[in-house]
Amino acid sequence: MSHYPSSVLNLIRAFTCLPGIGEKTAERLTMHLLRAQQREAQSLARAILDMKEKTRLCLSCFSLSDTDICRICSNPARDKTMLCVVGDVDEMAALEKSGAYYGLYHVLQGLLSPMDGIGPDDIRIRELMQRIGKEEIREVVIATGTHTEGETTAAYISERLKAFPVKVSRIASGVPLGGELRYVDQATLRKAMETRYVI
Amino acid sequence: MSHYPSSVLNLIRAFTCLPGIGEKTAERLTMHLLRAQQREAQSLARAILDMKEKTRLCLSCFSLSDTDICRICSNPARDKTMLCVVGDVDEMAALEKSGAYYGLYHVLQGLLSPMDGIGPDDIRIRELMQRIGKEEIREVVIATGTHTEGETTAAYISERLKAFPVKVSRIASGVPLGGELRYVDQATLRKAMETRYVI
Repeated sequence: MSHYPSSVLNLIRAFTCLPGIGEKTAERLTMHLLRAQQREAQSLARAILDMKEKTRLCLSCFSLSDTDICRICSNPARDKTMLCVVGDVDEMAALEKSGAYYGLYHVLQGLLSPMDGIGPDDIRIRELMQRIGKEEIREVVIATGTHTEGETTAAYISERLKAFPVKVSRIASGVPLGGELRYVDQATLRKAMETRYVI
Repeated sequence: MSHYPSSVLNLIRAFTCLPGIGEKTAERLTMHLLRAQQREAQSLARAILDMKEKTRLCLSCFSLSDTDICRICSNPARDKTMLCVVGDVDEMAALEKSGAYYGLYHVLQGLLSPMDGIGPDDIRIRELMQRIGKEEIREVVIATGTHTEGETTAAYISERLKAFPVKVSRIASGVPLGGELRYVDQATLRKAMETRYVI
């Protein structure tokens, strides 16, 4: 790569810091920007700086926002009696993309992990309890993952919620749609059998 | 994606303008930068702007440079009697990576394409002839591609070079190393047979 001038090498190196971007891709992206209009390169650079400057957490649900209260919390069309608890913004993004949920969210800052010293006070569970005491929530859907930390967090939250007059639910786990049973692991199959529903 | 604040959406959109970056990858890169140190995001943005500002063409060989004369032209270790003609900086980058060449380059601005109205004056062939008249070049290696435009350009340049006391060569084409003959197209095989060499 030493045949490139250092300003080009610097950009290639900066791109390789991004996840999933190897040296070849970084080189291709850099060559594209080199040939691109000044305007395109500038708007990418500006979008990066702008995003870092403006994006913060919604004061209510702790999802990403560039205003004090995020779009979902301030959207009058969302069902304010439903609250879905997720482990991070990626889980929330996945649910939003599915289009299956129209209530509010509470985004935890990760999941409980006693082994790593991560307790309820570290992941905004206190804020969750405060919201449930204050807001008009009737159902809490716990949508954390189904790995150990996800299940531990779900169990802890559902225990704490017994003190409140709310319905608590957990998103279902089971055989993925379009999935063949023989490719599904035994634990998932057991869960799918236990939580079978009448059709 | 509407659940993202606009500063996040803007960056996702800016990333999707890059070649080979779809919406999913753009989202992943954006989320990475969101969580990254301010310093990492800033250095990427700055590298983009810097590269656009500083990178220009070497006044001698027309490859990329951030100085008037590029690193290769100003490297005393390079053989100044050899000049390799390539169609663009990508072809030059490929040769440099191979490590097989230690002379100078002349980077054309594309290749001859009479059908598209691209003639010798459009692609720095005049500058090539001027260099050969002025510099101490003894061999010109024409390393343009082996497609129609590459061959046309090579033929044109080698014809023009007859007026100069220089050796003119063309990089070989043939069966790729590790390639099986049955997977090689007929034209390449014919060429490989015609240009066979004694071992």
